[in-house]
Amino acid sequence: MRGKLISFEGCEGSGKSTKLRMLEGYLQEHNIPYLYTREPGGNPISERIRSIILNPENTGMTPACEALLYAAARVQLLHDVIEPALAQGKLVVCDRYVDSSLAYQGEARGLGQDFVRSVNAYAFENYLPDCTVFLDITPEQAFARKHGADENDRMEREGLAFHNKVYQGYLKIAQSEPGRFIRVDAVGDKQQTFLRVLNALQAHGIL
Amino acid sequence: MRGKLISFEGCEGSGKSTKLRMLEGYLQEHNIPYLYTREPGGNPISERIRSIILNPENTGMTPACEALLYAAARVQLLHDVIEPALAQGKLVVCDRYVDSSLAYQGEARGLGQDFVRSVNAYAFENYLPDCTVFLDITPEQAFARKHGADENDRMEREGLAFHNKVYQGYLKIAQSEPGRFIRVDAVGDKQQTFLRVLNALQAHGIL
Repeated sequence: MRGKLISFEGCEGSGKSTKLRMLEGYLQEHNIPYLYTREPGGNPISERIRSIILNPENTGMTPACEALLYAAARVQLLHDVIEPALAQGKLVVCDRYVDSSLAYQGEARGLGQDFVRSVNAYAFENYLPDCTVFLDITPEQAFARKHGADENDRMEREGLAFHNKVYQGYLKIAQSEPGRFIRVDAVGDKQQTFLRVLNALQAHGIL
Repeated sequence: MRGKLISFEGCEGSGKSTKLRMLEGYLQEHNIPYLYTREPGGNPISERIRSIILNPENTGMTPACEALLYAAARVQLLHDVIEPALAQGKLVVCDRYVDSSLAYQGEARGLGQDFVRSVNAYAFENYLPDCTVFLDITPEQAFARKHGADENDRMEREGLAFHNKVYQGYLKIAQSEPGRFIRVDAVGDKQQTFLRVLNALQAHGIL
């Protein structure tokens, strides 16, 4: 049986990495075959594209160029990694995916969701996630918890106004796709948040 | 007055570089302000993208990834280089442009022209060339003249069957856009070919 595709979304410092490690522990304990991957990257070509996207020297990169590079890295990841794992019946767990492009480039960079959907048509048409977990915490709350951003990453160096636009973008997606895109309160204790994630995945027939 | 945008297209070894150098000589002699640029590349970010596209190690690159990388490099070139030059009233002369994507990725790689037009919508809608010179010589004739391909370039390493599909792709564009896309016989002597190029550009009100 073909596997399912789920993605995790959220602002910088929303706790995606921690919850994903906890989910990996859960999947291993329960002998659920899975594949973890991250965007942008996950294979040699996409990692080379990642290094261009996140290189702090590339300050003059246009939003459209950025969106196209994310889409290029994504399509290669789908071909090299995600499709083979789905074909093997694995649960594919993706740290960021198409909704990051909608929120970051479509909304925060101002390109519009239509532009992002158009350049990512291959992913949207063939690999829409079965379920997306949105770790809901505002950038203010997340930055306070994380004690600042990673200065070596071009995206994290963006200011709070930018990250607030990303957050608003995510809320907009949550409104337009309530079936697939699940808001999980991510403000409190990480164990509690993780339980909410598990409950959501069970409710959506993933676990 | 806003400048004009022209592009040169053709298969590998069609003599684009030689004719472009001759055109530069002509423009300098006649004091016509111009900007020469090439795709993919022409600015630091696009050159970094170029190095991923042409790197012979990236043999597993999917056609869609390749098309998206070309589109990303293009949109940055338009913003950083082509738009400012057009705004200054210069004649912008581009060594390869959107038609390369239609012929190489759309036709030879089999993605279809619709996919290529969709990911390059920004360029097609805002920066369609005023005139495109297609140096018409078949891959067989071109390879014979060039004494083989550059083995360090992932595109040139493709076989003759691939380059024949590129050529057929160009012929298809020539049929569908006879007003903009001008076929110039490029088989014979380079001086004769260059005179045909000049005549074509004059006939289209560029020179």
